[in-house]
Amino acid sequence: MSLSIVIDRTANLAIYQQIAGQIREEIGSGRLPPGSRLPTVRQMAEQLSVTRLTVQNAYTELQSHGWVESTVGRGTFVGKDIQLAPHLAAAGQPLTPAAVIGDILHFGQAPGVRSLAHASPDLSLFPADEFWAHLANLRAVADTVVGYGPTQGDAMLRLALAEMLRDRDITATPGEILVTAGVTQALALVAQALAQPGDVVLVEQPTYIGFLHQLRTYGLQPMAVPLDAEGPRLDVLERLALQLRPRFFYTVPSYHNPTGLCMSLERRQHLLALAAKHGFLLVEDDIYAPLAYATPAPPPLKALDRAGVVIYATSLSKTLAPGLRLGCLVAPPAWQERFVPLRLAADLGSSLLLQRTLAHFLQEGGLRRHLRRVLPVYGARRDAMVQALEAHMPSGVTWTQPAGGFSCWLTLPRQPQLVDLRRLMLQQGWAVAPGETFLVQPSAHLHLRLSFGSLPPDAIRRGVQILGSLVRQQLSLPAEPYADGTDWMPLV
Amino acid sequence: MSLSIVIDRTANLAIYQQIAGQIREEIGSGRLPPGSRLPTVRQMAEQLSVTRLTVQNAYTELQSHGWVESTVGRGTFVGKDIQLAPHLAAAGQPLTPAAVIGDILHFGQAPGVRSLAHASPDLSLFPADEFWAHLANLRAVADTVVGYGPTQGDAMLRLALAEMLRDRDITATPGEILVTAGVTQALALVAQALAQPGDVVLVEQPTYIGFLHQLRTYGLQPMAVPLDAEGPRLDVLERLALQLRPRFFYTVPSYHNPTGLCMSLERRQHLLALAAKHGFLLVEDDIYAPLAYATPAPPPLKALDRAGVVIYATSLSKTLAPGLRLGCLVAPPAWQERFVPLRLAADLGSSLLLQRTLAHFLQEGGLRRHLRRVLPVYGARRDAMVQALEAHMPSGVTWTQPAGGFSCWLTLPRQPQLVDLRRLMLQQGWAVAPGETFLVQPSAHLHLRLSFGSLPPDAIRRGVQILGSLVRQQLSLPAEPYADGTDWMPLV
Repeated sequence: MSLSIVIDRTANLAIYQQIAGQIREEIGSGRLPPGSRLPTVRQMAEQLSVTRLTVQNAYTELQSHGWVESTVGRGTFVGKDIQLAPHLAAAGQPLTPAAVIGDILHFGQAPGVRSLAHASPDLSLFPADEFWAHLANLRAVADTVVGYGPTQGDAMLRLALAEMLRDRDITATPGEILVTAGVTQALALVAQALAQPGDVVLVEQPTYIGFLHQLRTYGLQPMAVPLDAEGPRLDVLERLALQLRPRFFYTVPSYHNPTGLCMSLERRQHLLALAAKHGFLLVEDDIYAPLAYATPAPPPLKALDRAGVVIYATSLSKTLAPGLRLGCLVAPPAWQERFVPLRLAADLGSSLLLQRTLAHFLQEGGLRRHLRRVLPVYGARRDAMVQALEAHMPSGVTWTQPAGGFSCWLTLPRQPQLVDLRRLMLQQGWAVAPGETFLVQPSAHLHLRLSFGSLPPDAIRRGVQILGSLVRQQLSLPAEPYADGTDWMPLV
Repeated sequence: MSLSIVIDRTANLAIYQQIAGQIREEIGSGRLPPGSRLPTVRQMAEQLSVTRLTVQNAYTELQSHGWVESTVGRGTFVGKDIQLAPHLAAAGQPLTPAAVIGDILHFGQAPGVRSLAHASPDLSLFPADEFWAHLANLRAVADTVVGYGPTQGDAMLRLALAEMLRDRDITATPGEILVTAGVTQALALVAQALAQPGDVVLVEQPTYIGFLHQLRTYGLQPMAVPLDAEGPRLDVLERLALQLRPRFFYTVPSYHNPTGLCMSLERRQHLLALAAKHGFLLVEDDIYAPLAYATPAPPPLKALDRAGVVIYATSLSKTLAPGLRLGCLVAPPAWQERFVPLRLAADLGSSLLLQRTLAHFLQEGGLRRHLRRVLPVYGARRDAMVQALEAHMPSGVTWTQPAGGFSCWLTLPRQPQLVDLRRLMLQQGWAVAPGETFLVQPSAHLHLRLSFGSLPPDAIRRGVQILGSLVRQQLSLPAEPYADGTDWMPLV
């Protein structure tokens, strides 16, 4: 077969990336159909007058995202059904949080799949020139930034994070800040430092799927506190606190994942009072808070905390980019004395190079500038999703009205025809996140999480339209006998 | 006070770094004596016509390394006794592994201290131009590399690591490789996945201090297998295996930390046979193996493993730079099914940006080139240390002859006058690593680990000379009554 690939040696794009990009275009446009064989590495290298390593890199890049498949001795072929990416084969397996997170990460970059499943920012909006300029500047201090850094985090980054936290009304000294690999690592440290295997902890229902995976991994018992429009139901919370003496309550008060809801100020104050009264801690995940599309969220629990009951985590993964793997855990020094040795045991600490780059980016006002630019973009996407849901969903389906963040929570009637929505969407090239893995207790309904951060409004409308058609289609099918419990799997 | 600082706006060095560097010179040379006050941020900014943020960054950089101290409302002062860095104040505290690791990380960059304590490569040898060129190239794919990547690691990096492992006679597919944040994270995953709290695991005596901290953190019980010149004593190992049914034996066969010794081929083969016979795993830490100063080390256990009993970990922290926080855990896919979800819980995965940069660096042969350049340098430093020990140590003191790696293990008579060597060395501006924290069982002797990777030969000779004088001086003092157990603290 012949492939016309044009190399531009003056372009600001590595040659292997040019090759991979053009092959991706050919596949995406259908000119290279599924199953067709690509030239061998040697042929392609000769044809383009590049090294074999360059071609190998292009093929590896394509392979890692599922566009092509290589078999030793047979060659490299366009993925047989690139709309059905590798993980779909495992779709019949139990929906553990780990499997669903793996799928979400995969579909975020899989070919032929547009993802409403991952709550990620749109990385085409990333301020790359600015960030890479800071990276380049650090060449001059290479021998520092490629060395071991302090486990608690680079002093300069902790100062910059302290400044960032002031925008959230939080006063924290660098000594109260532990740099972490995202909120994920912050929560892993919390789960290990604040509780013992078997301990009960309270979570919102629904809640962040990654934390449910962590609780399972570290042997903690989550109990569910349902949400209403104002936030967690405090009557349930108080009852559970009295009965079970939980170590902490994990909450995402501002633009909650997966619902997008924002806890009211009054509810925050009552929650703080309850925690102080009953002696449990509040673990506050504030990762989405700056993504406010109308009025700002109320102050975080940490800013309202007079009793010292709040452990606070945030990161740059939603506001800037998840791939930096940088966030922080904010707590008094006495708590840090437990967190820092755990971080030391886990991985010694974060890369000083990335920490210092982020520190300069923050100090120069990069985050504030970036947020001013992207908030209207994300707000428009939120609007597109809500409007499309109103236009395309049949009655009986409801959804949250996210005031910020990236996600919207769908509630559908629990009818057996609907169990395969995730799979049916995938067959049409769309990823959605199955709702049951966000739940600790079974729900009387079916749920999906739809995220709108990383797709343009047209794509969001198209995806919701397809989902709406599927739901309508499915609901008009005759119902098959319904066997309770076969369609979802409780997490605990 | 007046400070003459010259800013070169055309230099390839950030202005705050120019300021910090010149102040460091002033302090180091004694022209700015301890306790003297620096200009305020505002004064300095006006004097140099730079922003206050720039001066603040310079002061923060100096402060984070202990050169200056700032007190709100009072100003910024040259550290009162910069030879005695902050951690020394805590030197009277129990020598836990965590405290000693913190000290080692700190003294590696502390002002006024030359460190024989940290087994780090010399970062002034880092191939910064080459590495930064790869970093810069990735600007073109920013929207990929700042996104979430697969938890198991970037496919391109795993291919490059597979190629790197072939240099160690190890055949591993990308599916058998998990990218980790250094060997430290690989060992944390091993400690959590392969054993339960309370389980017994076997370690060498002495062994890597970081792993002892991890065992303590994750609640595992280490038991000691003593070393002889060929490697671990297999008679002891077999007895412990029969008595205690350990989950695994952790070993650093090639250029062992902290002794620098290399396990013989015969011992490796016997060890593998024992593991297969008694049903325990071998956790092989191969991080120092490429640092061979004479003949190469024998093949790693992993390459000799026919029974599938070896879990293998390595990283770039000793061969290239620790600050990348990149290494790998090599094990069959069935084991990876346990490690990958743990890694997902711990931190989701490593930064794609750093992974991809390293992948390109490795693919272009950067590591092989770098090793060819630095091995003779480190070999000369090893020679300098061994010769200096011969020249300056009194009889009664012995040491290992490291054939590779960065460390040498000193054995001194257990005499009460010698207990404070670490502190006495620090008072002279030298850091050494106290030996007892590398031990699971108490030793009849005193020990120090001396590392030679990051200092030039002259400095190594000077440090050993000072240590030798201290030891001689101390040994000639009249012995004070000796109270057993007051001078060291067993780890378990």
